[in-house]
Amino acid sequence: MSQFKLSNLIAATYTPLNADGRLNLQQVGPLVEHLLGSGVTGLYVCGSTGEGMSLSCEDRRSVTDAFVTAAAGRVPVIVQVGHNSLDDAKQLAAHAQQVGADAISATCPSYFKVGTVGGLVDSMAEVASGAPELPFYYYHIPMLTGSKIDMVPFLTEGVARIPNLVGLKYTDTALHEFQECFELQDGRFDVVWGCDEMLLGALATGAQAAIGSTYNIAAPLYARLIEAFEKGDLQEARRLQGLSIQMIRTINLYPFHPAMKAVLKMKGIDVGGCRLPQGKLTAEEAKSLQSKLQSIGFFDWS
Amino acid sequence: MSQFKLSNLIAATYTPLNADGRLNLQQVGPLVEHLLGSGVTGLYVCGSTGEGMSLSCEDRRSVTDAFVTAAAGRVPVIVQVGHNSLDDAKQLAAHAQQVGADAISATCPSYFKVGTVGGLVDSMAEVASGAPELPFYYYHIPMLTGSKIDMVPFLTEGVARIPNLVGLKYTDTALHEFQECFELQDGRFDVVWGCDEMLLGALATGAQAAIGSTYNIAAPLYARLIEAFEKGDLQEARRLQGLSIQMIRTINLYPFHPAMKAVLKMKGIDVGGCRLPQGKLTAEEAKSLQSKLQSIGFFDWS
Amino acid sequence: MSQFKLSNLIAATYTPLNADGRLNLQQVGPLVEHLLGSGVTGLYVCGSTGEGMSLSCEDRRSVTDAFVTAAAGRVPVIVQVGHNSLDDAKQLAAHAQQVGADAISATCPSYFKVGTVGGLVDSMAEVASGAPELPFYYYHIPMLTGSKIDMVPFLTEGVARIPNLVGLKYTDTALHEFQECFELQDGRFDVVWGCDEMLLGALATGAQAAIGSTYNIAAPLYARLIEAFEKGDLQEARRLQGLSIQMIRTINLYPFHPAMKAVLKMKGIDVGGCRLPQGKLTAEEAKSLQSKLQSIGFFDWS
Amino acid sequence: MSQFKLSNLIAATYTPLNADGRLNLQQVGPLVEHLLGSGVTGLYVCGSTGEGMSLSCEDRRSVTDAFVTAAAGRVPVIVQVGHNSLDDAKQLAAHAQQVGADAISATCPSYFKVGTVGGLVDSMAEVASGAPELPFYYYHIPMLTGSKIDMVPFLTEGVARIPNLVGLKYTDTALHEFQECFELQDGRFDVVWGCDEMLLGALATGAQAAIGSTYNIAAPLYARLIEAFEKGDLQEARRLQGLSIQMIRTINLYPFHPAMKAVLKMKGIDVGGCRLPQGKLTAEEAKSLQSKLQSIGFFDWS
Repeated sequence: MSQFKLSNLIAATYTPLNADGRLNLQQVGPLVEHLLGSGVTGLYVCGSTGEGMSLSCEDRRSVTDAFVTAAAGRVPVIVQVGHNSLDDAKQLAAHAQQVGADAISATCPSYFKVGTVGGLVDSMAEVASGAPELPFYYYHIPMLTGSKIDMVPFLTEGVARIPNLVGLKYTDTALHEFQECFELQDGRFDVVWGCDEMLLGALATGAQAAIGSTYNIAAPLYARLIEAFEKGDLQEARRLQGLSIQMIRTINLYPFHPAMKAVLKMKGIDVGGCRLPQGKLTAEEAKSLQSKLQSIGFFDWS
Repeated sequence: MSQFKLSNLIAATYTPLNADGRLNLQQVGPLVEHLLGSGVTGLYVCGSTGEGMSLSCEDRRSVTDAFVTAAAGRVPVIVQVGHNSLDDAKQLAAHAQQVGADAISATCPSYFKVGTVGGLVDSMAEVASGAPELPFYYYHIPMLTGSKIDMVPFLTEGVARIPNLVGLKYTDTALHEFQECFELQDGRFDVVWGCDEMLLGALATGAQAAIGSTYNIAAPLYARLIEAFEKGDLQEARRLQGLSIQMIRTINLYPFHPAMKAVLKMKGIDVGGCRLPQGKLTAEEAKSLQSKLQSIGFFDWS
Repeated sequence: MSQFKLSNLIAATYTPLNADGRLNLQQVGPLVEHLLGSGVTGLYVCGSTGEGMSLSCEDRRSVTDAFVTAAAGRVPVIVQVGHNSLDDAKQLAAHAQQVGADAISATCPSYFKVGTVGGLVDSMAEVASGAPELPFYYYHIPMLTGSKIDMVPFLTEGVARIPNLVGLKYTDTALHEFQECFELQDGRFDVVWGCDEMLLGALATGAQAAIGSTYNIAAPLYARLIEAFEKGDLQEARRLQGLSIQMIRTINLYPFHPAMKAVLKMKGIDVGGCRLPQGKLTAEEAKSLQSKLQSIGFFDWS
Repeated sequence: MSQFKLSNLIAATYTPLNADGRLNLQQVGPLVEHLLGSGVTGLYVCGSTGEGMSLSCEDRRSVTDAFVTAAAGRVPVIVQVGHNSLDDAKQLAAHAQQVGADAISATCPSYFKVGTVGGLVDSMAEVASGAPELPFYYYHIPMLTGSKIDMVPFLTEGVARIPNLVGLKYTDTALHEFQECFELQDGRFDVVWGCDEMLLGALATGAQAAIGSTYNIAAPLYARLIEAFEKGDLQEARRLQGLSIQMIRTINLYPFHPAMKAVLKMKGIDVGGCRLPQGKLTAEEAKSLQSKLQSIGFFDWS
């Protein structure tokens, strides 16, 4: 298990919803085909992007089933099982293992904050034990969990307590902490980059894989970025990262995930809006977003 | 429903757990008798104190059932149903109504933050609609939810959209906002105070009811405080509040809720420790806490 | 010195400025007469209200001189000398002593944050040593300094190291910490309340003195509040505090201190606007503020 | 002026102090020779590193004079003039221009926070006007100022109001915002990187210059990093950045700047400790730091 490694661009998938906010699982297939067709090499299901925390456990299980089925073994499926109730998280982990997911991942709780490395190790040990045969990635996203724990001692202490701990989904801007985790113990940990708008910096630092939202709508752009980087053409890589930044700034003029879902619809995949508290764009907002994206050429270069 | 008002000291109840962290519902009865015997006039179930967020929905339903049964109509039972998944929150509300709870209450989600008054009203409307026949109290606790929304426009806008909105559990130190909410529209809203260590200030400002953790272990102290306040004996009221502050400072030397549960055990009610991420005191910590509480006379005056 | 105690309503005075932002010391006299005429019993000079941090040391000395002169011994003058440069703070303290101020006060630095009780004691010892003959009040305002140190150990450790430490200007909403400081060592410390909108709660808790901005414009309102409180007429005290809260909410619709200065002008004392980064209200904003204040009856009851 | 560009490694210089905390200007010369000898290509004086905010204006002028004299035109000297009093900042700017500094730079105030782009432009316009003939760099360091303003509109709006605005010292981890600023208006702005531990990521993103503390003690390490990067040897560049990260983690076990000054002393340049509130390492702490640095080979590879 310690050799499990993700690579390239993993989409943090959106959860398709109907107009009334219920699951629309029929759209999972088309979404997955769109993603694989655009070069995505893995699926991260029920993360922040997929509104995992806004779904009931039952819905999370259904979503997981649908993505595992749709992926059909072509790319790894990582299931995010973080929950305020660690018991629920553990059971979601067990379900993911049972239905054939390739890995699990979890945030810590967001209501009661985790204040120490030891507390985080204890909590994640409980979750990871639900799927002992699957690799486990701690999902570090302090901006949403409110727990800003140093990841270096978490990995070194965690690996002694959590047999299936393989690495991190690292969603913070502290590139140096990312690098330190990445290089720890001769690169033993699979530390996956989670800030799409800083991908180039992460590549330079050594990143081999990235998980993010905007790979749903612009994977080819990022693939060209990676290709340029690997050829040593930094000029081109910067230009492409610059386009990604412009795209994200534009989308951020609106509530982010609802706007991203609106963009997917513009691209032909109707995944609905978000559940509350995130909500959805009005028709007018979607139209205005579309025209702003057109004016920066998004539909050509994405 | 708009005339529903809480009064006096409502205990935010602890959820009894076994050594393995499972529910220990047999202790609900003894806990409730202890609380009613000590003068508590209401039970707030599955709040922060009761680790509602750390429990599965199924466990929350069982806990709710047990407290409603144990209360047996003698005091109102308010069930906290807040959840990252508003759908789960709504179903917990429906269950609370079905089993005869007297009121519901909910935090907003803590993972995805709520940034606007409108977003909070929309979110709480969804939750409150699950129990349309019960009074609904929004549980304002920005320290844990990360959402610091102005409560005055929330109440004025919310009441137009949420028919069963009756007030707030107000757990913040901004006494002026509390007063403003309390006096809004001729005192229409039942705004219940949630910071035990500031009860005296809240009484002066008009508070008629308080919900808190430390009413589990020291209700008589607070009852004497209220009595002294009502008799105009501020000197005595301050002295008693001072004891409460000393008690809380002592308990805060340890992780708060696990330490509170340890104190309940010292008082003869074994409710176990907390689930992760909060955990439990070691035997040694509990002993040291006990001796510190003894040295301030806690077991005499509480 | 340990018997020095402030009492009643101390105005945190505004610093009169000309249209070009220079000091307008000729207005200090009229401002002081206005304040004393309205029942103010002390002057807190060059605090947050007085934009101490936005002034050069030379200007701060001139402002200090002007207020000491204008007060003419009728009420105590406390000079706030906090500065990012503790050396400057110390010299401002020395100057205050030299020109006959009654007490000094200081925030900790705001650029480099103070992280420990010991660090705060060390820093304040340096400042207070500049005016060894004057009582020293630490100015606790974590919202602006970014340093949230526990005041209880600060006082107990500080008094052993800072001979002239007499108490605190306590500007935070944690009424329980205020009470604890107030009652420490048999009430040895003079802990002065700093949140005008929570004065009633603080009085109930024991407060004997308050320092604040809105005592510049509405001291009679607060004097009636204190009077009602002392007579045991809580109903009336709440009504008056409610007016104060309404007033502050209205002023807070604009940048606070620039708006407060505009209100002083409406009351006949032209103290100009604020220096950057705070700036001043436009004429239009001032007009709109005035009409909002009229509509709540402010000019009658303040 | 718009063509002024910094390049390579600019040391944010330490301010030499005596044991009693007074300036020790005789050490400025040796420090500058050490820095230039180690490959540093510019000096950033009185920044966070140089404790600018902890010094009186008079001291800041003396320090500026000493560094300008010691640099003797060999490398550009940028003087940081940020101050809570914008008037003081402006006068420090004027002094820097007068004595022949090459550029000025300023943070916004840290006590009164700046909340809007317009407010920041107004404030910085006032400061920059003190040295109209020198290039001006806004010093963006939200972690210390508490003002997290979007730098993109600041630059586009600022350049219209501040004739000498040439760019930023960018001290935050948001590499995408850095890149966006860097590329704005065809690369018009000189945006200088300020997080030493993320230099490699910044280079990949386009950075041409960096200002930082650790260039005082390890410039050759970073020079080799840049060289490796420019030759396309990312493996080696990562290895060197990894050493820098290890070094910084070690130093961060102590109060950072006091520890850095202790390291300079180990390297033969005695610049004393820091003023309060930062203080100095004890002899014992310094010894323990030294042995930790030895054990990671710091004295060989730095």
